Amino acid sequence: MADKAQLQEAIKTQGEVVRKLKSEKASKEEIDEEVAKLLQLKAQLGGDEGKHVFVLKTAKGTRDYNPKQMAIREKVFNIIISSFKRHGAETIDTPVFELKETLTGKYGEDSKLIYDLKDQGGELLSLRYDLTVPFARYLAMNKITNIKRYHIAKVYRRDNPAMTRGRYREFYQCDFDIAGQYDAMIPDAECLKIVYEILNELDLGDFRIKVNDRRILDGMFAVCGVPDEKFRTICSTVDKLDKMAWEDVKKEMVNEKGLPEDVADQIGEYVSMQGGQDLAERLLQDPKLSQNKQAYAGLTDMKLLFSYLELFQVTDKVVFDLSLARGLDYYTGVIYEAILSQTIPAPVSTPTEQDGADEGGVSVGSVAGGGRYDGLVGMFDPKGRKVPCVGVSIGIERIFSIMEQKAELSSEKVRTTETQVLVASAQKNLLEERLKLTNELWNAGIKAEVLYKKNPKLLSQLQHCEETGIPLVAILGEQELKNGVVKLRNVASREEVDVPRADLMDEIKKRTL
Amino acid sequence: MADKAQLQEAIKTQGEVVRKLKSEKASKEEIDEEVAKLLQLKAQLGGDEGKHVFVLKTAKGTRDYNPKQMAIREKVFNIIISSFKRHGAETIDTPVFELKETLTGKYGEDSKLIYDLKDQGGELLSLRYDLTVPFARYLAMNKITNIKRYHIAKVYRRDNPAMTRGRYREFYQCDFDIAGQYDAMIPDAECLKIVYEILNELDLGDFRIKVNDRRILDGMFAVCGVPDEKFRTICSTVDKLDKMAWEDVKKEMVNEKGLPEDVADQIGEYVSMQGGQDLAERLLQDPKLSQNKQAYAGLTDMKLLFSYLELFQVTDKVVFDLSLARGLDYYTGVIYEAILSQTIPAPVSTPTEQDGADEGGVSVGSVAGGGRYDGLVGMFDPKGRKVPCVGVSIGIERIFSIMEQKAELSSEKVRTTETQVLVASAQKNLLEERLKLTNELWNAGIKAEVLYKKNPKLLSQLQHCEETGIPLVAILGEQELKNGVVKLRNVASREEVDVPRADLMDEIKKRTL
Repeated sequence: MADKAQLQEAIKTQGEVVRKLKSEKASKEEIDEEVAKLLQLKAQLGGDEGKHVFVLKTAKGTRDYNPKQMAIREKVFNIIISSFKRHGAETIDTPVFELKETLTGKYGEDSKLIYDLKDQGGELLSLRYDLTVPFARYLAMNKITNIKRYHIAKVYRRDNPAMTRGRYREFYQCDFDIAGQYDAMIPDAECLKIVYEILNELDLGDFRIKVNDRRILDGMFAVCGVPDEKFRTICSTVDKLDKMAWEDVKKEMVNEKGLPEDVADQIGEYVSMQGGQDLAERLLQDPKLSQNKQAYAGLTDMKLLFSYLELFQVTDKVVFDLSLARGLDYYTGVIYEAILSQTIPAPVSTPTEQDGADEGGVSVGSVAGGGRYDGLVGMFDPKGRKVPCVGVSIGIERIFSIMEQKAELSSEKVRTTETQVLVASAQKNLLEERLKLTNELWNAGIKAEVLYKKNPKLLSQLQHCEETGIPLVAILGEQELKNGVVKLRNVASREEVDVPRADLMDEIKKRTL
Repeated sequence: MADKAQLQEAIKTQGEVVRKLKSEKASKEEIDEEVAKLLQLKAQLGGDEGKHVFVLKTAKGTRDYNPKQMAIREKVFNIIISSFKRHGAETIDTPVFELKETLTGKYGEDSKLIYDLKDQGGELLSLRYDLTVPFARYLAMNKITNIKRYHIAKVYRRDNPAMTRGRYREFYQCDFDIAGQYDAMIPDAECLKIVYEILNELDLGDFRIKVNDRRILDGMFAVCGVPDEKFRTICSTVDKLDKMAWEDVKKEMVNEKGLPEDVADQIGEYVSMQGGQDLAERLLQDPKLSQNKQAYAGLTDMKLLFSYLELFQVTDKVVFDLSLARGLDYYTGVIYEAILSQTIPAPVSTPTEQDGADEGGVSVGSVAGGGRYDGLVGMFDPKGRKVPCVGVSIGIERIFSIMEQKAELSSEKVRTTETQVLVASAQKNLLEERLKLTNELWNAGIKAEVLYKKNPKLLSQLQHCEETGIPLVAILGEQELKNGVVKLRNVASREEVDVPRADLMDEIKKRTL
């Protein structure tokens, strides 16, 4: 516990920081952050009566999901999981933290974003950064050579808030991967089919899925004359083409990365190319590219991939695009990324792109991404045995926020419960009768509520239905009890009908299909 | 990076530790832990060819869920969530970590088990220890005074492995809570109804739900002559009655906790009492207890509770038991705990009791627990505004392991996928036809798989079905293609029938209802 005078001093200093930021009109986020620190200091000092004052907030970069957000989240998950199951996927789960060294060396530059746990004695642990590395660790550890699995769980990134305004630090990933030694491009094509299905069913408007291949990129750099050691950095510059004009990308290549201008121009020609199977065929005839072993293999596979995509009827949305250059170290073959065509404007300071699809910097509208990573599992195997893998990550947080905005704009109210009927009464002293009927409904599997009041007003009972979207009210009164009936009221139409108690369950089921 | 000579020295020392433990026949867990440390050191040194050698394990006290475990987990969750939804509950989610100070001072002694995150600059964070404190923080932060919500998520406890062999450090909690100012005991009764429903539907054999009240316990201690400052410690001794005989509990009270023997004997008389509404009525006549304000209020509520439990038809399993003494600081009223009657023997070193029901030490077989905590939300509110709450936590990990054991013993195989049909061929060069048909099935919403091989053997295709439980095979051959039919084979009966291609979807749906 810090000394009281020290604390008071710290509070004073921190108060200056806040005032300064406010006077400078700093961003709301920055100010909030410093205010939170101030409150924490004040809390340490204790409140007016020595009472502990809590800072009422979630950790920076995280958020609660309220019931409405959860209802939307459940709907999105159901669509995605249905597709995964339709394709015969199993599911697994892994712990939220891994041994620190399991994650070390898998993410390149991004490793600095990993959350470490405090050393409280024992192992050094870190929160998972994605689901792919834990999946590879799981395969190697259990010596699994074949699996088709999905995994939906939260991952953690200490993103620099100044750089990545509005990104969450805790967010969902939603991964589907196929591991195993199979004939070329069949599982790869299925991953693209799944993205296509999911984006169609989520009804987010038109979209395109860009496809490229790490080997084609590397071959292209080689034949254009990029030195080997610059492949990575030039690749990340190419990756900016979805946000920057070619002229600016070229400038970066030449001025910042030191590429000769004619090399940059050659790259520029290639990365402007888009097409389908036809483009793969044309490039296989390209005198330079076709001589590069890597590029040749990549182009041959691309041609084969498109023949399967044709059979899967998804070529209307899939584009072979040589400018696609996803950043992650572990990709070895085909890579892809799905982009929504119509940009739904995100409200200010609403986080975007914090999903799995943002690896390596992704254009606005990117909602899924993935590729082939044949070497990752081998990194974990003591004997380096490889298990080829291809997978896709659905950018679920972005989809959530689009669905939330759609729900805001729509007149339809999002229900957060599934209650079919409220058991109510207009008269006093019927609590026991209400509880008894509610119990009968529960026992019959009907979703029913009752207000926890001895004598609630009928109006407040009806209001509860309107607020929460309960469609039916079962009203009990002395007369109904005597006659062995229940008055069933339709909340929307206000129609009421007496139903014999014995028929009530069936009647409710019929009306709330 | 440590100096190489230092590392080699550390490896040598650690090797000694492992050898010593082995020679002492220490527990497998202890040895594994030290071996892991040894491997980590060796990994730091680098492998034979300077290659990094990974320690292939999950963090201590955690585990992966494989597909079979996930299938069981999904089944259990579905039963539990259905019950929560039947009672009109919404759901929320909170981040996996909270500000450290949010958790501080809520768990008493157990606070030492909290996982802290490393201070990487910014806020001090800790992994959540349960879902109840984050729920209270959520209510206070959002000024919510009424909600009925469930929350299913993982929580984290650095349990001392020497003391609590086999407990998980990452495990699910499955909480249902009702917050709001309502008429007495109605929400409390609903919580018990939910426990009853869930345990019935999970089909885990007979069970009992013990009920008591913090106020009755405190009143009892007071009238027996326990000094105020010893309530807590005597309470935790009483809590051991489910594992220890009364004689031993008494010894602890007298010898360790310094209670006069006659005081202990008076407690002994009370805590041997079990019953229902009748017992509450009898104790209301007890000349000593009824004079204690706390006890009187608790007993009056207990009587009322049982009248509602009668209406909810659950009194065959619910017992008012004065020996129930759950430990957590925040309970203020009714407390309860569900116990399975028939003890299913847990396999050696399988974790048990790591669930929410274990708070304060719980008998073998405990699968749910909870109670009323009217003061917790007020601890977070700057003005101390109270939101009365009552809730229950289902001990889901224990239930998982019982279900897993049941599945092991059962002849029925647990399916990990829902695939309805495999598209197969007995002949070569039909990959494209297989993919085309599979695509048609997917588009019709049928769960279908196809092997990722150009020319798989029919036998290996059938084997895949038997291994994964796929009930149907749609077989394509030249002849079938010519005739516009598909041969539909029942994997179990081996019956085959030619189905016109146009009827295939309906036929598959009909056969896999």
